[in-house]
Amino acid sequence: MPHDEQFASDNYAGICPEAWDFMARANTQDASAYGEDPWTQMAADRLRETFESDCEVFFVFNGTAANSLSLAAMCQSFHSVICHELAHVETDECGGPEYASNGSKLLVGDGPNGKLTPESIERLVTRRTDIHYPKPRVITLTQSTEVGTLYTVEELKAIREVADRYGLRIHMDGARFANAVAALDVSPAEITWKAGVDVLCFSGTKNGLAVGEAILFFNRQLAEDFEWRCKQAGQLASKMRFISAPWCGLLENDAWLKNAQHANACAARLEEGIRQLDGVELCFPRQANAVFVDLPEAVQTELRARGWHFYTFIGGAARFVCSWSSTPERIDELVKDIAAASAA
Amino acid sequence: MPHDEQFASDNYAGICPEAWDFMARANTQDASAYGEDPWTQMAADRLRETFESDCEVFFVFNGTAANSLSLAAMCQSFHSVICHELAHVETDECGGPEYASNGSKLLVGDGPNGKLTPESIERLVTRRTDIHYPKPRVITLTQSTEVGTLYTVEELKAIREVADRYGLRIHMDGARFANAVAALDVSPAEITWKAGVDVLCFSGTKNGLAVGEAILFFNRQLAEDFEWRCKQAGQLASKMRFISAPWCGLLENDAWLKNAQHANACAARLEEGIRQLDGVELCFPRQANAVFVDLPEAVQTELRARGWHFYTFIGGAARFVCSWSSTPERIDELVKDIAAASAA
Amino acid sequence: MPHDEQFASDNYAGICPEAWDFMARANTQDASAYGEDPWTQMAADRLRETFESDCEVFFVFNGTAANSLSLAAMCQSFHSVICHELAHVETDECGGPEYASNGSKLLVGDGPNGKLTPESIERLVTRRTDIHYPKPRVITLTQSTEVGTLYTVEELKAIREVADRYGLRIHMDGARFANAVAALDVSPAEITWKAGVDVLCFSGTKNGLAVGEAILFFNRQLAEDFEWRCKQAGQLASKMRFISAPWCGLLENDAWLKNAQHANACAARLEEGIRQLDGVELCFPRQANAVFVDLPEAVQTELRARGWHFYTFIGGAARFVCSWSSTPERIDELVKDIAAASAA
Amino acid sequence: MPHDEQFASDNYAGICPEAWDFMARANTQDASAYGEDPWTQMAADRLRETFESDCEVFFVFNGTAANSLSLAAMCQSFHSVICHELAHVETDECGGPEYASNGSKLLVGDGPNGKLTPESIERLVTRRTDIHYPKPRVITLTQSTEVGTLYTVEELKAIREVADRYGLRIHMDGARFANAVAALDVSPAEITWKAGVDVLCFSGTKNGLAVGEAILFFNRQLAEDFEWRCKQAGQLASKMRFISAPWCGLLENDAWLKNAQHANACAARLEEGIRQLDGVELCFPRQANAVFVDLPEAVQTELRARGWHFYTFIGGAARFVCSWSSTPERIDELVKDIAAASAA
Repeated sequence: MPHDEQFASDNYAGICPEAWDFMARANTQDASAYGEDPWTQMAADRLRETFESDCEVFFVFNGTAANSLSLAAMCQSFHSVICHELAHVETDECGGPEYASNGSKLLVGDGPNGKLTPESIERLVTRRTDIHYPKPRVITLTQSTEVGTLYTVEELKAIREVADRYGLRIHMDGARFANAVAALDVSPAEITWKAGVDVLCFSGTKNGLAVGEAILFFNRQLAEDFEWRCKQAGQLASKMRFISAPWCGLLENDAWLKNAQHANACAARLEEGIRQLDGVELCFPRQANAVFVDLPEAVQTELRARGWHFYTFIGGAARFVCSWSSTPERIDELVKDIAAASAA
Repeated sequence: MPHDEQFASDNYAGICPEAWDFMARANTQDASAYGEDPWTQMAADRLRETFESDCEVFFVFNGTAANSLSLAAMCQSFHSVICHELAHVETDECGGPEYASNGSKLLVGDGPNGKLTPESIERLVTRRTDIHYPKPRVITLTQSTEVGTLYTVEELKAIREVADRYGLRIHMDGARFANAVAALDVSPAEITWKAGVDVLCFSGTKNGLAVGEAILFFNRQLAEDFEWRCKQAGQLASKMRFISAPWCGLLENDAWLKNAQHANACAARLEEGIRQLDGVELCFPRQANAVFVDLPEAVQTELRARGWHFYTFIGGAARFVCSWSSTPERIDELVKDIAAASAA
Repeated sequence: MPHDEQFASDNYAGICPEAWDFMARANTQDASAYGEDPWTQMAADRLRETFESDCEVFFVFNGTAANSLSLAAMCQSFHSVICHELAHVETDECGGPEYASNGSKLLVGDGPNGKLTPESIERLVTRRTDIHYPKPRVITLTQSTEVGTLYTVEELKAIREVADRYGLRIHMDGARFANAVAALDVSPAEITWKAGVDVLCFSGTKNGLAVGEAILFFNRQLAEDFEWRCKQAGQLASKMRFISAPWCGLLENDAWLKNAQHANACAARLEEGIRQLDGVELCFPRQANAVFVDLPEAVQTELRARGWHFYTFIGGAARFVCSWSSTPERIDELVKDIAAASAA
Repeated sequence: MPHDEQFASDNYAGICPEAWDFMARANTQDASAYGEDPWTQMAADRLRETFESDCEVFFVFNGTAANSLSLAAMCQSFHSVICHELAHVETDECGGPEYASNGSKLLVGDGPNGKLTPESIERLVTRRTDIHYPKPRVITLTQSTEVGTLYTVEELKAIREVADRYGLRIHMDGARFANAVAALDVSPAEITWKAGVDVLCFSGTKNGLAVGEAILFFNRQLAEDFEWRCKQAGQLASKMRFISAPWCGLLENDAWLKNAQHANACAARLEEGIRQLDGVELCFPRQANAVFVDLPEAVQTELRARGWHFYTFIGGAARFVCSWSSTPERIDELVKDIAAASAA
């Protein structure tokens, strides 16, 4: 049975055809190592065009590295980073940011639907200013969030205002950035640098690559000597073209956006199906490619027995994530099984 | 002109067919992330068979990470690591080991042909024992070395004796480990754990992968919780199967060994060609897949003008490295051009 | 007016006479540096006698260093340390533990009166076991706590049981350890190693020294090469005797215990005085040398205007801390002023 | 026999009378912690006067910390620090700088008499510019050097020129800075910021304190948030006044300079005495308070048997260091014993 593991996470999906095609093209001959190849140049240039910005672009292997190294570039070890209590950097990176920064503390804020509010940020900044408290220097936002919701342009701008007031920088964890762009129907520029984002980690892996995230520094000063940081941290690929060429595949003809639109549409179809079911509730507004459903433990067990894969989120909700490889047929089957398991 | 960049380094080569094939196979359906997939299990098992050892196996993205993280697991920040003055960890990893270990100093030893001698190691251990000097805890050896030479089984055992005398652990940087096995015509077990190696970093990238190194802990105690270390350091691939499945390709039917034998044979052909040339000398014994040639700067410039790629090594020698993708035709052309450039 | 800053913290007090006397004795002639002097030997030996244990003893400069370095010795960067949400390591060391350990995350638990409960610890250990969550390895307890309360021997043993169940080590932040011993009327051994504590940071500074904390490893294995760690971290005093000789002063004739008893008695007197006041409530049981009082902001402002020094704690309470240098006269004056300010 | 350990190092000496006196004064009443006391303000102001500079001033516990933290503030983990092969940071701090900076490599240069030459620095900067080599960012100079010699103002300015050419910052390890000022007979300003030094670590311990080094940032930008760095690294003294008040003692009436002049004069007397001895040679020009003598191992053994303390330096020379507490009588006795032991 193909695709039998879909819905657990968008990183369970494979390599999308456009990425595969460019990987094959890059493999027709030898090429210079460490990013000194034409594919890497091309991928960076296309990202700059896509974001309408002369930003600095770097490629690293995975999301934890992208977040950790870019945050380390945005502050010192004795500074702190403000994040939502559900942020991936806080809950799922095993101390990666603290390791890369040699000790920057994460200060945990809150807000409904997985989104930091300006008030929560301000509270963390102003409650103490003594030297026993690590000085806040960065705000990190996940777009779309860990619970599949979205920051609007207005919400981002309101956070930028707080940031400006207290001299903070804004980092965006874009593990599902493509899904956010697709869902908000805005340009990449509008929800990043035009809304005050200094640095974006743009995930290729969850969008259809085998491996490889792009880090975009719209605030170019923060990128000073960043290539050395990547090298030292074991994040400089020798055969870089096998990260960058697939990125070219994603960027050509907007495959990245189509992949995201497809995943979002699949999640919308799942949401719609679930809304038809009596007594089954969503936990968060479904806005991008993830659907969080309040299912009793017994129902979740039954679904797993039927071969479905999904995560149980903090608090007990079932999380279903759609990807470029999700299919309407399987979604409909899933809805049917949720109905059956819930009825039992 | 295909393959026009060959000889600069074995990481200029692409993905070998066996690896490509398994990557394609792994892409036929979704799979669990973070190594919980059948390919990763299979790759680890095949490595254990290949090394006749129930060792612990981990996969990381690149060689700097493999070296840095495994060394960090073998000592504490206030310990030191003994390496040859030409060792990659000392000269080409931008402080990666010091970063991952949070400060372990590299103590630089020496020995002819890029190989640490037992005497040099002993000297570094015994010259001081006070607490102002970071306590030696690990010896790291590169096999084959940075100048393309080999440690014999006997040499390794002699180093093991010193290690035992002073309570040191032995790490092997196997960026070109396959080439060493092929050249020495020994089993992988014989030149690793049977000769006293505690931990091996076995490079897949230089052998024909897009990305991905295996770390083998023969001393299993040193591997305690190492998966957490990888995760924290941004070295846990979410789509791990795209590293491990290609490894299965390398390991099936000994493709890894054939790739190495081919590269070594190409280097031997190059050596032979050069030996015919009057007044052109090798700098080090050619033992694996690298050939170091004493060429005047003007000759090197001329060769580059003719489109050849190679590194100029410390001291001025030209370094030519062969890979799985090298071809006899190009080697013969290279020899001809060296002859012509040298005669000019 | 002498002592006008007392009550803000016990580190506002000066050097007690016994410590001063030994500092003077140590200054009568030259001595070997870096702890190779007779005073350091004597101080370590007396600590071993006092604790009835052949523990390993090290001296460092301050409490943040003592906590950070000992915690770093008890786990790896990818492990985590369980602490109370009010713990000094979490709230007041500016990321010191994360810095020294290169990234170990603090997991924040809770419990009434500033004390971690076994249940809270167990919850943090069992809620997740995946590699995206830093593996719990250490529990840190503050004795007496940040709110001036005490862990009883029974409470410590109950926590040791949880620790044993999950392979955790126990660290004790003894910034006010002397006050705890004095208040509980137990032997130092009984509330440390006999109750399952592996490592104790015993503060000398808050007890009457100018500078200098002792770290005691009852679990001697954890102390392996710890002297190198101190050296590397800038915590090895060259003129060590000026830390260790004053410690001898504290340990001779139990001056450390008398200092603590005095401070506790002063706090008891303050508590008693406040209990006489209508409408003024304590926030936590007064058990050692700190008194937390629920005073309106206006009252606190008035007290400060009258020249009193104290901290306003999280939540708004006024914290008064007594030390070896506190005097009954000033306490009575303080009570009178609290009465007057509250009545206004 | 008093002072029987003198000559091993200037950190074998005790606390000088002026420092002791101010320590006593600071102990007459309670004072605010963490540097918010009048002594710390006074000490910083007097340092600014002494250096004729509105520099930023911080106090830390010891020299390893002062060097490590200030170097960490001057570069990033992937940068490198150029030092002389005999520099204390390289040979005697157990990886302290690498630890505090989270991995900055020390690049080892050379030059006669323990002094880095501009040529040696330039060679290290220009030999490689690729990202596998940590980018040079700081030069560190020891004044007076580890072999007791001095950088002249002209030599410093020549190094500043190289620094400017390559965008490097200059750090001065002033473990024996006072001795250099005394010996060169220049103002502190002239051999620091006027000669291009960005940051100075000025040792109080070797000059007569129990503990405590001052870090002066003439380049104030480099001091941004440095107080947080000190706090995080466990280098913020709670009872700071017991570091700063003794500094006031050193600075009042130029006690620091007199202490240094005395130590230098003692070393000159020792030099003179030794010059009278046939067949006994100095290893380096005696310029400050240290005398390096080429003595056979047997002679050194004999001297130790007679109760003398001194270090045997790399290469075998005997190192004698004078301090504020050295006495002419003991120097003359030492000379006599060297004569006797050499004649035997």
